[in-house]
Amino acid sequence: MAGSTLGTIFKITTWGESHGKGVGVVIDGCPAGLSLDESYIQKFLNRRKPGQSRFTTPRKESDRVEILSGVFEGCTTGTPISLLVRNEDQRSKDYSEIASYYRPGHADYTFDAKYGFRDYRGGGRSSGRETIGRVAAGAVASKILAETGVSLLTYTRSIGPVSISEDRFDAEQIPANPLYMPDAIAAREAQFYLEECMKEQDSSGGTVECVITDLPSGIGETVFDKLDANLAKAIFSIGAVKGFEIGSGFSAASKKGSENNDAFCTDDTGRIVKQTNHAGGILGGMSDGSPIVFRAAIKPTPSIARPQQTVRKDGTPVEISIAGRHDPVIVPRAVVVVEAMAALTIVDLLLANMSARMEYLKKIYRD
Amino acid sequence: MAGSTLGTIFKITTWGESHGKGVGVVIDGCPAGLSLDESYIQKFLNRRKPGQSRFTTPRKESDRVEILSGVFEGCTTGTPISLLVRNEDQRSKDYSEIASYYRPGHADYTFDAKYGFRDYRGGGRSSGRETIGRVAAGAVASKILAETGVSLLTYTRSIGPVSISEDRFDAEQIPANPLYMPDAIAAREAQFYLEECMKEQDSSGGTVECVITDLPSGIGETVFDKLDANLAKAIFSIGAVKGFEIGSGFSAASKKGSENNDAFCTDDTGRIVKQTNHAGGILGGMSDGSPIVFRAAIKPTPSIARPQQTVRKDGTPVEISIAGRHDPVIVPRAVVVVEAMAALTIVDLLLANMSARMEYLKKIYRD
Amino acid sequence: MAGSTLGTIFKITTWGESHGKGVGVVIDGCPAGLSLDESYIQKFLNRRKPGQSRFTTPRKESDRVEILSGVFEGCTTGTPISLLVRNEDQRSKDYSEIASYYRPGHADYTFDAKYGFRDYRGGGRSSGRETIGRVAAGAVASKILAETGVSLLTYTRSIGPVSISEDRFDAEQIPANPLYMPDAIAAREAQFYLEECMKEQDSSGGTVECVITDLPSGIGETVFDKLDANLAKAIFSIGAVKGFEIGSGFSAASKKGSENNDAFCTDDTGRIVKQTNHAGGILGGMSDGSPIVFRAAIKPTPSIARPQQTVRKDGTPVEISIAGRHDPVIVPRAVVVVEAMAALTIVDLLLANMSARMEYLKKIYRD
Amino acid sequence: MAGSTLGTIFKITTWGESHGKGVGVVIDGCPAGLSLDESYIQKFLNRRKPGQSRFTTPRKESDRVEILSGVFEGCTTGTPISLLVRNEDQRSKDYSEIASYYRPGHADYTFDAKYGFRDYRGGGRSSGRETIGRVAAGAVASKILAETGVSLLTYTRSIGPVSISEDRFDAEQIPANPLYMPDAIAAREAQFYLEECMKEQDSSGGTVECVITDLPSGIGETVFDKLDANLAKAIFSIGAVKGFEIGSGFSAASKKGSENNDAFCTDDTGRIVKQTNHAGGILGGMSDGSPIVFRAAIKPTPSIARPQQTVRKDGTPVEISIAGRHDPVIVPRAVVVVEAMAALTIVDLLLANMSARMEYLKKIYRD
Repeated sequence: MAGSTLGTIFKITTWGESHGKGVGVVIDGCPAGLSLDESYIQKFLNRRKPGQSRFTTPRKESDRVEILSGVFEGCTTGTPISLLVRNEDQRSKDYSEIASYYRPGHADYTFDAKYGFRDYRGGGRSSGRETIGRVAAGAVASKILAETGVSLLTYTRSIGPVSISEDRFDAEQIPANPLYMPDAIAAREAQFYLEECMKEQDSSGGTVECVITDLPSGIGETVFDKLDANLAKAIFSIGAVKGFEIGSGFSAASKKGSENNDAFCTDDTGRIVKQTNHAGGILGGMSDGSPIVFRAAIKPTPSIARPQQTVRKDGTPVEISIAGRHDPVIVPRAVVVVEAMAALTIVDLLLANMSARMEYLKKIYRD
Repeated sequence: MAGSTLGTIFKITTWGESHGKGVGVVIDGCPAGLSLDESYIQKFLNRRKPGQSRFTTPRKESDRVEILSGVFEGCTTGTPISLLVRNEDQRSKDYSEIASYYRPGHADYTFDAKYGFRDYRGGGRSSGRETIGRVAAGAVASKILAETGVSLLTYTRSIGPVSISEDRFDAEQIPANPLYMPDAIAAREAQFYLEECMKEQDSSGGTVECVITDLPSGIGETVFDKLDANLAKAIFSIGAVKGFEIGSGFSAASKKGSENNDAFCTDDTGRIVKQTNHAGGILGGMSDGSPIVFRAAIKPTPSIARPQQTVRKDGTPVEISIAGRHDPVIVPRAVVVVEAMAALTIVDLLLANMSARMEYLKKIYRD
Repeated sequence: MAGSTLGTIFKITTWGESHGKGVGVVIDGCPAGLSLDESYIQKFLNRRKPGQSRFTTPRKESDRVEILSGVFEGCTTGTPISLLVRNEDQRSKDYSEIASYYRPGHADYTFDAKYGFRDYRGGGRSSGRETIGRVAAGAVASKILAETGVSLLTYTRSIGPVSISEDRFDAEQIPANPLYMPDAIAAREAQFYLEECMKEQDSSGGTVECVITDLPSGIGETVFDKLDANLAKAIFSIGAVKGFEIGSGFSAASKKGSENNDAFCTDDTGRIVKQTNHAGGILGGMSDGSPIVFRAAIKPTPSIARPQQTVRKDGTPVEISIAGRHDPVIVPRAVVVVEAMAALTIVDLLLANMSARMEYLKKIYRD
Repeated sequence: MAGSTLGTIFKITTWGESHGKGVGVVIDGCPAGLSLDESYIQKFLNRRKPGQSRFTTPRKESDRVEILSGVFEGCTTGTPISLLVRNEDQRSKDYSEIASYYRPGHADYTFDAKYGFRDYRGGGRSSGRETIGRVAAGAVASKILAETGVSLLTYTRSIGPVSISEDRFDAEQIPANPLYMPDAIAAREAQFYLEECMKEQDSSGGTVECVITDLPSGIGETVFDKLDANLAKAIFSIGAVKGFEIGSGFSAASKKGSENNDAFCTDDTGRIVKQTNHAGGILGGMSDGSPIVFRAAIKPTPSIARPQQTVRKDGTPVEISIAGRHDPVIVPRAVVVVEAMAALTIVDLLLANMSARMEYLKKIYRD
């Protein structure tokens, strides 16, 4: 089945391993007439690039994107957009040791179980570098959304035990601290916490939150391709995600209907809106006009320098210590990946919705 | 895009509205040679049938399933299996009132936003009756899993504030109480809580947990069709789900790597296993040999008899009170729906994995 | 993989065997707001019904269609449309003989090869009755095309050695003779020929032609989902089709470029048109504004009363004579099936094309 | 919808334009454990390379393929295989003239109709260079087939009026003449004919035939994804194809059932076989054990130096003469493209068939 393709109309296919020749993505189904250049995509890639702060791996990869097809005279042509990023920082080293055992929390064991062997150089296909293709494609999706009037805001909600405070929420803080937190005080606390983790040769998890505004109502399909279901899949397909919730999320489980229902009313302009947003902007799988709000739980980086118990391929026990240049927390770099996956999901369903009504058909073909 | 089809190889398409002629599902891609009859499927449908206890709607629907195709002399033939359940309890009543306003927490508003109008009789396509097709198809998927040696155990983990206790976990309790809880004491407490809710004309949310055992390692694809990603989508496509987590889930976000990693070791038979299971049985999107463990958060039934504020289609405010026969909690009836969606997801990926290796190809075609 | 589903946006799934409980189709992705009732679909089904003339099987099946879902107050709702036709004329008879051997020209042998056994009652899934689902869905597709201004004209072009003459082409003749030929003289000749075949206990092949007019230019995708490629698949998925060609078709292979190219010019209204139509209305996989013209070759009915040599399952030779009620030619009944498959293909690509340009996106969401 | 992806399990996505940075393909779903290197793929690409003889364009493109991912230590890993061929021979020239008018027989007009504008440098996405991705992916598919014991033989059957003679059929002649004809005498005649065409500044069409042997019986799905239907689509998705037929093809339309049916018998080894092969190796959409035999009609190259009438974008008439380096016949270079598309189709259905029976499932997971 493969499974490297996502989307029905706006369809992306990523490829590449961490230590192969490069990574990339092919976008098929991008509407013609979108102005696009490499610099626009590069800006998104730079948000996930290693080496941005002392809390991300010091590996040096410039991650320069090259548009190989599908753009002509600064505009998308409707044909597939192939994007390529060559791998650069492939230190030639001896992989025989790492090839011999299974790192806890990594996909080494399951790759062997599935395919009988694996590309043991770095994370191979399960490396974080695979997300380069997602982010590059997500940049294109974001451009389409921007031109349709839809905005996404994504940020770190918590790192380990440190959460942002709703009262101090300040979107301008997001790019102002290396953790992409919308709360300067929480960001400082979280940095102290991370430094503690690093001293202990340990790592930390966290949560990412995404808010999507001005999406038209009615986007999303009613049964399996619900907007929330497709978001759940897209976000859960990011390596380290262990939980996903929308609106009131898990807290809805302990609530009563009278608390969790959102009453409808009208706003100043007479438009029908919801008084509250426990639904997180989605009812019956379709956008309801309120902001879409979702959160993802991200596990701590499994690569830690602390000694860990594991086994070799033949089952003999071994104690390992993963040296090297690993992120003590991947949450800040995951922010743009989450945003990219959300944008890709939204665009696909936005395009799908264009054939929802006979009147739209007539608008395109008969007017 | 439609979105009433799920799966790539084992593919299901559900159809039907709550107050139309019936509901059903077409299963395409079921392997030939599976023994199957209506009574096997009926057992699953009976687990979601209304009227099972005082905590479910007293509507009377026998929900008898009819196999229309794809089974010959008690065996699947490899051709599509069409399953039909006729709707029975369609009280003829006046829908003009309900048609005029938007019920909070329901898809009335978003249906209108998407399609311009809606089938306003009951929940229409967004009714819980749509899950009949899922459960019927899930029964077939479960049969395949049973014959492959895979088991699923699904139950209510919490209702409102009442959770089961790990210490008292007893699988035999699940069918023994109307709430499908594996803990007799918690079940009793939860029933008290629900009676309270009913007195207040209110409803409650809860969580469902599912444990899948003896799934071979390596099932699931490595990028977008990760086992956890496809489970997340399948579960989130159930109407009332607001959260999904796997293994340590949201709690992983506040943990350290050294706490969250699962060390590999060998068991008595020399097989490689994990010492703990924070991963919930999935590493890199593929099953790792440990039980798959996931949880879903289910919101309180939005249909409550308490007065609620909402608006009519033209925006005029109206106070409504949803009379009628509604479940005060849908969690117990959702248990089998969650199990069905999990079974469908697993079977699809199990079949997909059959083409993962050249040696499997040779095993089928050359041996 | 299954393979009972066709289409990406307007998606149909057929199910059912000739001697099971019924046959049907689920249409997913039909735009909301199309007026539709059973009588409209029934008209299409009546064109393929058995017993229309002495050249079709005298089996009696009323083939009444029932709309089970997706239509409310005479209009499609955007949700799946489930259509059911119950099987009626299942003469209870002894199938043990037919089950024991492989009929030449039928799928008996290949079904056994694929699945290990088969539903040996009649043609099972490979029966012509499977096309009922296609025709019913095709009726819905035709309705969409009619409302978009697109027309289809389909007819028998030849039966055995008897072809229509271009000079005598008269569309009004098509429904006026039992062979659906647009040429009264050819129709008479073909009837003589068929009577000869029937006397010899033999059957005849023929060709069907379809002309699609007023399709907007640019419909069809540029690489794999070319309009002609998708038509080729759709038509070739009809049981008895052995050849497909478009425009000048096979004759293009012996032509020169200067003969086969169609010069562009303008018509009276200044619109750009082609002077000739060797291309059959498609250039580069996209409609070019000229009529789409294609032909399908249909093999003679394999069920003939003449004695034939074949083998039993164990390889022992046997002489058989297929008694029973079989069409001496299936071409006339295939006409509406070809038209249905063409309509389904066109609608799917017409809907797909709605997301081809950013300006369409803005037309729907911003205007 | 995009439409640059083909296949369900063995899935390819091509990208690239004739005058962009390159062309390529991503193969997703290739089983792990297939030995593969660039030289194997290069051999297939060399069969379609320009400049092979005086009957192909003298353009110089080395068309060197680079494997960017999915292969590790000489073996496929199960992850996507990304293949890249950089464009080289992009003569910098003035395209303003060609941009202004619509070439007859090309996709210039339809591209403008679909997208509003086009990449007018060469054929853009509709260029024959797009087939590089198909051929490269087809090489990988052919490798899988070779290891499963399936063979493909593809050749030119006719050029203009010159056809091969069945009596003189000699497979060894295929690579021995520049036209890839299995008949030395016909090849010579065809070369005379082509020289005549070239003198007249004209081009020629032709037919390609493909024979697939030793495919197991039962490959192909029974309804829409019939083996012949998927082959028809795959072959018709090649730019210049105007007709497709299988077995007796169009001639079946004028035959009687008694002539066209293939009797079953047993061969020397007791295996059930067909005495004749009018069916072309496919019954009911599934392979029947006989060789698969199909033919494709290919139109004459539309780019001819002869003066032609056409119009500019604004409708003003213009006489053009397409100078430049064009193939007087594309049939010989199309041979490998047809073979590639056949191999891709067969592999996808071969993998799909692995989940056709419960016993296969048990063979993989329980034995």
